[in-house]
Amino acid sequence: MAGKKLKLGALIHGVGGNISAWRHPEVPTDASVNFDFYKSQARKAEEGKFDLVFIADGLYINEKSIPHFLNRFEPLTILSALAAATEKIGLVGTLSTSYAEPFTVARQFGSLDHISGGRGGWNVVTSPLEGSALNYGREKHPSHDERYEIAEEFLQVARGLWDSWEDDAFVRNKESGVFFDPAKLHTLNHKGKHFSVQGPLNIARSKQGHPVVFQAGSSESGKSLAAKGADAVFTGHETLEEAKAFYRDVKRRTVEQGRSADDIVILPGIGPIIGRTEAEAERKYEEIAGLVSIENALNYLGRFFEHFDFSQFPLDEPFPDIGDLGSNSFRSGTDKIKKQAKEKGLTLRQVALQAATPRGEFFGTPEQVADRIQLWFEEGGADGFIIHSNIPSGLTDFVELVVPILQERGIYRTEYEADTLRGNLGLPIPANRHTLENVRG
Amino acid sequence: MAGKKLKLGALIHGVGGNISAWRHPEVPTDASVNFDFYKSQARKAEEGKFDLVFIADGLYINEKSIPHFLNRFEPLTILSALAAATEKIGLVGTLSTSYAEPFTVARQFGSLDHISGGRGGWNVVTSPLEGSALNYGREKHPSHDERYEIAEEFLQVARGLWDSWEDDAFVRNKESGVFFDPAKLHTLNHKGKHFSVQGPLNIARSKQGHPVVFQAGSSESGKSLAAKGADAVFTGHETLEEAKAFYRDVKRRTVEQGRSADDIVILPGIGPIIGRTEAEAERKYEEIAGLVSIENALNYLGRFFEHFDFSQFPLDEPFPDIGDLGSNSFRSGTDKIKKQAKEKGLTLRQVALQAATPRGEFFGTPEQVADRIQLWFEEGGADGFIIHSNIPSGLTDFVELVVPILQERGIYRTEYEADTLRGNLGLPIPANRHTLENVRG
Repeated sequence: MAGKKLKLGALIHGVGGNISAWRHPEVPTDASVNFDFYKSQARKAEEGKFDLVFIADGLYINEKSIPHFLNRFEPLTILSALAAATEKIGLVGTLSTSYAEPFTVARQFGSLDHISGGRGGWNVVTSPLEGSALNYGREKHPSHDERYEIAEEFLQVARGLWDSWEDDAFVRNKESGVFFDPAKLHTLNHKGKHFSVQGPLNIARSKQGHPVVFQAGSSESGKSLAAKGADAVFTGHETLEEAKAFYRDVKRRTVEQGRSADDIVILPGIGPIIGRTEAEAERKYEEIAGLVSIENALNYLGRFFEHFDFSQFPLDEPFPDIGDLGSNSFRSGTDKIKKQAKEKGLTLRQVALQAATPRGEFFGTPEQVADRIQLWFEEGGADGFIIHSNIPSGLTDFVELVVPILQERGIYRTEYEADTLRGNLGLPIPANRHTLENVRG
Repeated sequence: MAGKKLKLGALIHGVGGNISAWRHPEVPTDASVNFDFYKSQARKAEEGKFDLVFIADGLYINEKSIPHFLNRFEPLTILSALAAATEKIGLVGTLSTSYAEPFTVARQFGSLDHISGGRGGWNVVTSPLEGSALNYGREKHPSHDERYEIAEEFLQVARGLWDSWEDDAFVRNKESGVFFDPAKLHTLNHKGKHFSVQGPLNIARSKQGHPVVFQAGSSESGKSLAAKGADAVFTGHETLEEAKAFYRDVKRRTVEQGRSADDIVILPGIGPIIGRTEAEAERKYEEIAGLVSIENALNYLGRFFEHFDFSQFPLDEPFPDIGDLGSNSFRSGTDKIKKQAKEKGLTLRQVALQAATPRGEFFGTPEQVADRIQLWFEEGGADGFIIHSNIPSGLTDFVELVVPILQERGIYRTEYEADTLRGNLGLPIPANRHTLENVRG
């Protein structure tokens, strides 16, 4: 692993973080639609030489949705605006393949990629929320398997459209009047199960070939999609063991697809809480966790247990015996909650508050957080991390206190290596499928 | 008309203008995907206190498409980037209702509107190019009438979604923990012929209520759509008489819909050619027009007639009889071409070259151009104009030479009146339909 550097991303989620982070004194309550807020977060991440900022998304809300989801920027528009407000950092956003058209999506990410000079990235998701169908005139939300089947074809089409123009197609000779070479313009003519798209796309490839493709689902189908077609994976794990197993699994699948293990980078999301002392970290944690009302926390906990109503139990007595409940939905998570509650003798209140505001292992002094990061990185649990702080100063703390330690230890860059996202992530530029054929032929 | 000021927009079209403008020495040949170029054009227009920049669009290319169409920015992404690079100017882009989803479109324009602080605008079009269907998995391009029927419903849905949140819905009280008032969140539940969209939208209204809605078709259906639902019309006329007739017609239709004549602004596009002397203007025109070959001009003409191949006809004989061709795409334009050719006895060559580089009446010295503008404005042919220059210095000439004259004459602003596009255009902020009901009830 000599010389290999870890990668960093920053999830910007407005008033998000935990479900009540918006109540923290330092959070602007309009953060999710406040461009100055996004700009300052992106610039702080760029100051820390982060590879990318990340914008999540969703296509359905109702009055029970968490504050950040209710009223927020749409990813492609906010990323394009951030392209004009930053210089080096990558710009990655979520867009669901379940309710969109490949021609439009390939164009918009292609355009972002040109505007930013090769810094665009697309996090391919399939929309977990069933209600999304209602906003798109569909009878019902496609099944999990069907959504992934659609996503795979969608991504194939997008990659095909991105290769419409060979890199030297645009001659642009003012003397001769030849603007482009028609032999280097390719019509896709895709006809598949879910999409028929003729092409060509009306935008060229950018400096980085294709926008960087992220995948963020950790199911079997998600891992399979990642191995076949993604450049990066945004995942999440509570323990190093879990992270290592996932990492090995996705790298193995990627190699099985005929790709190199280095062709995909794996970035778990982490929410570090950093204090100059352990006591300060503890105080910061309690300040954030204390914003969540017990009603909200019980509600949040209930979601993992098939929307079970925990409010019927006394708060300050041991976590109730609820039998098998939860084993059909988030089994590994719910088993862990039950086990921990029993072992540590936690009350219902303690369990609920901990679920709403996980403490995580990236906690403590800057050195302690840097140690965990180095451990996960060097033990094969991650190629890097996506930082999602509960409150904006979490990112500032990370950039100002942890980044210098990681740089000092030689495992993180002190300057950007490249001016494209792909270049900084150490990913290859995808050859244009047509140019490749020409070379072979 | 005392005190009323004219409005100005700038169409930024990369290497566009005429089909061979890219060959002009001053045009960067990658202008259509060059963010610095777009930024400098937008800032020049803002220096001239223009109301807006305008980005056109299309959803289909083939190897005969004009250079600017082949490889260009997608409107929402480039406008969002320009939002970060400008402060006061409006940001208007074309998006077709024939191949998009209202939930996505309402969100993206809503998001642009928030990013820009209330400067967003959407030019509703229905896609004139038949080939668009092939990029969106459709059997065939909908007919002209059906496209407008879809557009009308689409716009109703978008306006409904934009009203999902009343302006005071977000309480955001950190003390009480109340983020929003559920009574001020409204679910649309639209079920129509073409769309079923439940809502609510996951973004609030911006400072200007709704993004400014433009309409750019001049057919009967286009004018009807404008009168019912648009805030502004981007049109084009060769003579003042034509402009006046159109102006009167659209204002009358708007009033018939129960709106005020001032609720809609009418902005013909003009391509001024400005010289310090008439001779200099003449030289500039010839320099631009001379870049177009007759082959390119025929191709360009064909584009308006469903990519008809005009090269099969003799160049110097009267314009051929081609029957109904063109009536399902750019109907108002193709009708006009046929009519003029017949009335003036033009040859195919004349029609083609004139189509490729219209000379127009906004031609000559700065005073002469200002005179025409003032005449059209004061005679009731326009509320303002959208300037589309063949080459970038055309915009510079306009801003530096013509704008001061218009300001001197008191018919154009010297400072922005407002910080929203709607405010500068003098358009009312649409009341939220739900808030209005509350007030009445």
